[in-house]
Amino acid sequence: MDHRYLENIVGRFLAEDIGQGDITSEPIFAPDRRNKAFFVAKDEFIAAGLATIAPTVFKCQNENIVCAGIADGTVVKKGDTLLTAEGPILDLLKAERVALNLVQRLCGIATLTGKFVQIVKDLPVAVVDTRKTTPGLRALEKYAVRVGGGHNHRMSLADGILIKDNHIAACGSIMLAVEKVRGQAPHTLKVEVECENLKQVGECLDCGVEIIMLDNMAIAEMIEAVKLVNGKAILEASGGVGLGNIRVIAETGVNIISVGALTHSAPACDISMRLISA
Amino acid sequence: MDHRYLENIVGRFLAEDIGQGDITSEPIFAPDRRNKAFFVAKDEFIAAGLATIAPTVFKCQNENIVCAGIADGTVVKKGDTLLTAEGPILDLLKAERVALNLVQRLCGIATLTGKFVQIVKDLPVAVVDTRKTTPGLRALEKYAVRVGGGHNHRMSLADGILIKDNHIAACGSIMLAVEKVRGQAPHTLKVEVECENLKQVGECLDCGVEIIMLDNMAIAEMIEAVKLVNGKAILEASGGVGLGNIRVIAETGVNIISVGALTHSAPACDISMRLISA
Amino acid sequence: MDHRYLENIVGRFLAEDIGQGDITSEPIFAPDRRNKAFFVAKDEFIAAGLATIAPTVFKCQNENIVCAGIADGTVVKKGDTLLTAEGPILDLLKAERVALNLVQRLCGIATLTGKFVQIVKDLPVAVVDTRKTTPGLRALEKYAVRVGGGHNHRMSLADGILIKDNHIAACGSIMLAVEKVRGQAPHTLKVEVECENLKQVGECLDCGVEIIMLDNMAIAEMIEAVKLVNGKAILEASGGVGLGNIRVIAETGVNIISVGALTHSAPACDISMRLISA
Amino acid sequence: MDHRYLENIVGRFLAEDIGQGDITSEPIFAPDRRNKAFFVAKDEFIAAGLATIAPTVFKCQNENIVCAGIADGTVVKKGDTLLTAEGPILDLLKAERVALNLVQRLCGIATLTGKFVQIVKDLPVAVVDTRKTTPGLRALEKYAVRVGGGHNHRMSLADGILIKDNHIAACGSIMLAVEKVRGQAPHTLKVEVECENLKQVGECLDCGVEIIMLDNMAIAEMIEAVKLVNGKAILEASGGVGLGNIRVIAETGVNIISVGALTHSAPACDISMRLISA
Amino acid sequence: MDHRYLENIVGRFLAEDIGQGDITSEPIFAPDRRNKAFFVAKDEFIAAGLATIAPTVFKCQNENIVCAGIADGTVVKKGDTLLTAEGPILDLLKAERVALNLVQRLCGIATLTGKFVQIVKDLPVAVVDTRKTTPGLRALEKYAVRVGGGHNHRMSLADGILIKDNHIAACGSIMLAVEKVRGQAPHTLKVEVECENLKQVGECLDCGVEIIMLDNMAIAEMIEAVKLVNGKAILEASGGVGLGNIRVIAETGVNIISVGALTHSAPACDISMRLISA
Amino acid sequence: MDHRYLENIVGRFLAEDIGQGDITSEPIFAPDRRNKAFFVAKDEFIAAGLATIAPTVFKCQNENIVCAGIADGTVVKKGDTLLTAEGPILDLLKAERVALNLVQRLCGIATLTGKFVQIVKDLPVAVVDTRKTTPGLRALEKYAVRVGGGHNHRMSLADGILIKDNHIAACGSIMLAVEKVRGQAPHTLKVEVECENLKQVGECLDCGVEIIMLDNMAIAEMIEAVKLVNGKAILEASGGVGLGNIRVIAETGVNIISVGALTHSAPACDISMRLISA
Repeated sequence: MDHRYLENIVGRFLAEDIGQGDITSEPIFAPDRRNKAFFVAKDEFIAAGLATIAPTVFKCQNENIVCAGIADGTVVKKGDTLLTAEGPILDLLKAERVALNLVQRLCGIATLTGKFVQIVKDLPVAVVDTRKTTPGLRALEKYAVRVGGGHNHRMSLADGILIKDNHIAACGSIMLAVEKVRGQAPHTLKVEVECENLKQVGECLDCGVEIIMLDNMAIAEMIEAVKLVNGKAILEASGGVGLGNIRVIAETGVNIISVGALTHSAPACDISMRLISA
Repeated sequence: MDHRYLENIVGRFLAEDIGQGDITSEPIFAPDRRNKAFFVAKDEFIAAGLATIAPTVFKCQNENIVCAGIADGTVVKKGDTLLTAEGPILDLLKAERVALNLVQRLCGIATLTGKFVQIVKDLPVAVVDTRKTTPGLRALEKYAVRVGGGHNHRMSLADGILIKDNHIAACGSIMLAVEKVRGQAPHTLKVEVECENLKQVGECLDCGVEIIMLDNMAIAEMIEAVKLVNGKAILEASGGVGLGNIRVIAETGVNIISVGALTHSAPACDISMRLISA
Repeated sequence: MDHRYLENIVGRFLAEDIGQGDITSEPIFAPDRRNKAFFVAKDEFIAAGLATIAPTVFKCQNENIVCAGIADGTVVKKGDTLLTAEGPILDLLKAERVALNLVQRLCGIATLTGKFVQIVKDLPVAVVDTRKTTPGLRALEKYAVRVGGGHNHRMSLADGILIKDNHIAACGSIMLAVEKVRGQAPHTLKVEVECENLKQVGECLDCGVEIIMLDNMAIAEMIEAVKLVNGKAILEASGGVGLGNIRVIAETGVNIISVGALTHSAPACDISMRLISA
Repeated sequence: MDHRYLENIVGRFLAEDIGQGDITSEPIFAPDRRNKAFFVAKDEFIAAGLATIAPTVFKCQNENIVCAGIADGTVVKKGDTLLTAEGPILDLLKAERVALNLVQRLCGIATLTGKFVQIVKDLPVAVVDTRKTTPGLRALEKYAVRVGGGHNHRMSLADGILIKDNHIAACGSIMLAVEKVRGQAPHTLKVEVECENLKQVGECLDCGVEIIMLDNMAIAEMIEAVKLVNGKAILEASGGVGLGNIRVIAETGVNIISVGALTHSAPACDISMRLISA
Repeated sequence: MDHRYLENIVGRFLAEDIGQGDITSEPIFAPDRRNKAFFVAKDEFIAAGLATIAPTVFKCQNENIVCAGIADGTVVKKGDTLLTAEGPILDLLKAERVALNLVQRLCGIATLTGKFVQIVKDLPVAVVDTRKTTPGLRALEKYAVRVGGGHNHRMSLADGILIKDNHIAACGSIMLAVEKVRGQAPHTLKVEVECENLKQVGECLDCGVEIIMLDNMAIAEMIEAVKLVNGKAILEASGGVGLGNIRVIAETGVNIISVGALTHSAPACDISMRLISA
Repeated sequence: MDHRYLENIVGRFLAEDIGQGDITSEPIFAPDRRNKAFFVAKDEFIAAGLATIAPTVFKCQNENIVCAGIADGTVVKKGDTLLTAEGPILDLLKAERVALNLVQRLCGIATLTGKFVQIVKDLPVAVVDTRKTTPGLRALEKYAVRVGGGHNHRMSLADGILIKDNHIAACGSIMLAVEKVRGQAPHTLKVEVECENLKQVGECLDCGVEIIMLDNMAIAEMIEAVKLVNGKAILEASGGVGLGNIRVIAETGVNIISVGALTHSAPACDISMRLISA
């Protein structure tokens, strides 16, 4: 992720939590009093954002804070130290909550993604996210999905094509919809079409669609689709995917499985900050 | 919530999801083609944000969208219609994902809050949230807590006083810390102090602290604290509260129970949008 | 005050005064030509913002300016040096006017506040400000009030409760209004009610209102109110307070006296900047 | 003033005072409950901003508020109605304080300007303001000066040339400084030079300076300067101008008198808002 | 293009040209005085932005301006009326220059693009733009390219993959570079690699690269590349393309020709605004 | 140009080109891998922005990039090195396109301006720009005009007076229009009036207009105007000025010639960036 982009987002988060100042701490701590702070894991999980995003939060609050965290993807155990930060205690306390709120969520997403990925790791399939992300946090959450071993679907409506039932209905056919969109879109983007049945899958093949989304299809129908497509397009399974059924879906031979739960239902990991005198 | 504040936040969320435009829909739908859209519940839950926040999302995208949703706090069943919106299909599709991502989360928070509140509803205790909210969404998430029957703790570091162990250690005693903060803070704010034992609770009483937080105390100790305080301060229980133990905590006689899980671990509710020709 | 908050405000003030550049100085001074500048008092007053806010202005314009000023609360005499700044002359000249305009106003507020505070310093009463501040400068002006020995009332409509006649009329009674607001507001905030007569003061006591504002009451009536309340609530006198009558108001025994004039009518102090070659 | 520029400023002022919402009024008033509000003068003064700026404040908060105020420049008496606004009471209350804080200040500036202008109204001289304005309010305050019968000096460092002692010293002579600046500045701007003595005035004439500022000169010296210049440049008197000496300064024959006090020391006028049911 | 995105950009452009107001027109025209304005072509060219972007400029300045322009892609002759706008003359004058500056540039780009497209219209090749756009105007300029019959390359570094010599050198081979990027990028994006010779083209085929850019290759080498690739990837010719050589490049059989000149060197078309009384 | 102003603009340009990150380079280059980059001229032209603006682009992206370029106004030849930058390769690549797109345009404007200036360099006339600049780039483009030896007309509608036919018609005469505008505008600005014939020129002289614009006048008429005015006002020729006729216009004796083409039709210069290992 670009660091200027990240700093911009983080600045707003700090403003939300700090407002005009910390009315408890400012009367107590002198601006130049320094301390050391640690983030400690209170659970087992996959670390995400400790080496990159949390340090940005501390440095955005005060560029004189020295901060380093463990590498993305590290599996941590309860009690592990995840990050150290040293600097003015006033700014450590002001940045604490935003940093924790962010990394607890990102570790949660990476950890849940890791569980999905683990189940299908011996199969030639990629686990990808969706646009079902927290408003304002999309880039961060999609980053955490990558840390957990997943891949990303499009970032926004502007950088990926996905033709759905409404588009098809409005144009009269898949072919006409694909034509209209291809006439306007950059050639650098693949065309993806959401299909509800094998007939539609066939139509996609006829017009050279690069990615075919199988929307809430039964396992048997997916198997048919894989046969029909036979490598001529990327097949993405979508809808109702959970830890319980991702294996059987992957075994149909699809190339991509998209999972909304990665970002909308990952429980936060438990991390706390401890302070000691510097 | 103030509508200008809300529109400002929502504008950024729409920009995140839409960017420079919807490259799939814009080549297909004319800007003046109108449709009707519905939000439908796919679960049972407490509605939050359908009458207020989701309509703001649609109207922010296009002020000509006419939109109305069901009242906050309504308990909905699977299949219930939650919201109708009529306007240009291009803008309905652009606003869809942001509106859904927001209300699915807010309904989730209201629903989880409702579960906690239900368990203690016959006792004189309030369930409150914390600062463990999603960065960028604090005001919205605290709104959903209120919809679910909970109450709010401070909104930010700037509008509530909470003296913790670091502050006490830096000043030498609770009394000195309270004095320092009272010397600077508006008289309109109560002073809250986090206590780890009964001795500290007693010190708080000695200096007229208005709210005493019992931090991760055992049930027996909380009972002692309630006796000791005897109505001379508000008692807030905090730390490790779940659906399984909130009842027993409430029965100690504390006045307030704060629950981080309300906002950091509420699973999203399932809602989808359906489109029909207008 | 939080430094990120302050820098954000100051950046806009600099932009207002500098726009695209200083068309007089830029053709004359090379960007790396350095000078020393001094702020000099041309009056006697209480210093406010010289050690904190003015240096932020200079550093916002150019982080390489080295700048330090005298402590908040210092009583200065005509001719005293208040601040020194050393750095590129171009940036010293660009920041000069904003820095002066700010501190002249802040010193004015601190000085006027100091006069009010001085008159009642032997009495157990606090002098507080109001929301009658300059739009865009509220946090800075409330800071200057604290420097002058005063205290702050609420910062905005969002972080303090003040129930007035319209609210009471709409609800039917003080009790009902208090109930409605308490049902929604954080428990960390005290409830304040504006009263016009003793009957209302009594109603406030009945429902446990924490702060009672006596709005434009006669001295005799205030004395009655103090007796009636007898320490069961904080009493705030408000309306028409000046240097001439604050003593007699304070002697009624009220706890708080709010003075709009602190921020809306404090005359600016006279300070000028002198430059010498570095 | 451009309305888009004004709305932009006002939006920030409303955000400062309202934050995330009015925690007292929002639980009490339904969003669609309408009322009527009036601004009433509690003093005698010159109206400024009632017809233009205050209505923008109300409409920025809610575009459905219908609002009109009396014309700029009207002399009002105690008890006069200055403005009426009708709309949702919630938004009338939210906009009230910002609107009042602004117009009280602007009326104060217009009124003070009017006093200076009145004293010299039979003489061919213009009273102008300076850059000693409130940070963030410059355009509004300079507008109020015009309402009071005054004129404006430059708006910022970017749109007016003023060569001072530092510039002259750095270049070696007035002529060289003027040359350097003229080489870069738009031909649409007049060149102004600050002079401390008649010798400098003469040098200005030699190089065709269009405006000569007489900085803190004695009356006798100003009279000499007027003779020397003899209409070949605009003469501006500056420094230490008050209501007591502006007449004698004007009688020297200078064309322009600049007065910092117009904006940095005008006391606020007293205006209050009254609400009645709509 | 999304209308909220467009309004945001346009608001900044208006602020740049109008600042705090139009000091010539505001003293002369009452805010409610209405007029009609016309845009008239003073050249022959392809219209772009008259029906969409110019009306947004006028409506951003004042939503009460009624404005309509001719369809994108219309070929206009000298003297043709391109747009009519009716509303307050003050706002017509304020929006005039921004609207003209934008559409003159966009028509210029559409017209130049049209010339390139015309030359190769009977061949199966697309003319595309590059990132050599005016900073701040990329989305608008790429829109104009589409109006002129061209297509778009990636919008930014974030939504298109282009592996160049530095990337290849850092990884050791095309294959390793492609692998690294594919491991992180969304599957919705095609991989493009810039090649300098046929050997590299061959390597691209070996690892399934979807788009191969032939960077400044000679015509003969391009012909070889087309044979070698034989439809297994999209071929993009890039570098030094002008109106004089695009035909011969297209005849090599490449699929895409990218032309930086479309956006960095299109001369502005000549359009003027005429006003008549409404 | 003020550096804070410049950084603000540049930040938006970088965001436009980089978005959430460079999806090609970020997976390949470690954030701390350093390189050296050079800008090389591929044409002969006048350098503009290499010493000031391009380094700001690189430093805005990463303050640790060390960057220096050749002085404004240098005439460069094909192959000349124009700028060196050393720092993290990731940030060099991210800033490259914005820096190039800006300086190619600015050098183009300086070069074209230089051609106009060269033709009339022995005559007492200034070549000035207009408001026909690229939206969002006005300050930069006007800077490049100065580098090329030209001068600037007003920066915006707010800082220069230009009375045109509409203003005159609305007021009834030039005299009345001038009076109205002078009543409101700062005395630091000259009044300019656009004239279509000699009669209007005479009217301008009668009311002391400081600048008279001769709008699209024939050469013979301009010669008459120069005689008529005889040094009592600045004469500006405007309309249809090109390299072919500027000499003959200048020979009429006008003082100023404004040329829209300087900014709306200057072709970009050709510059490329080369990278070598640091």
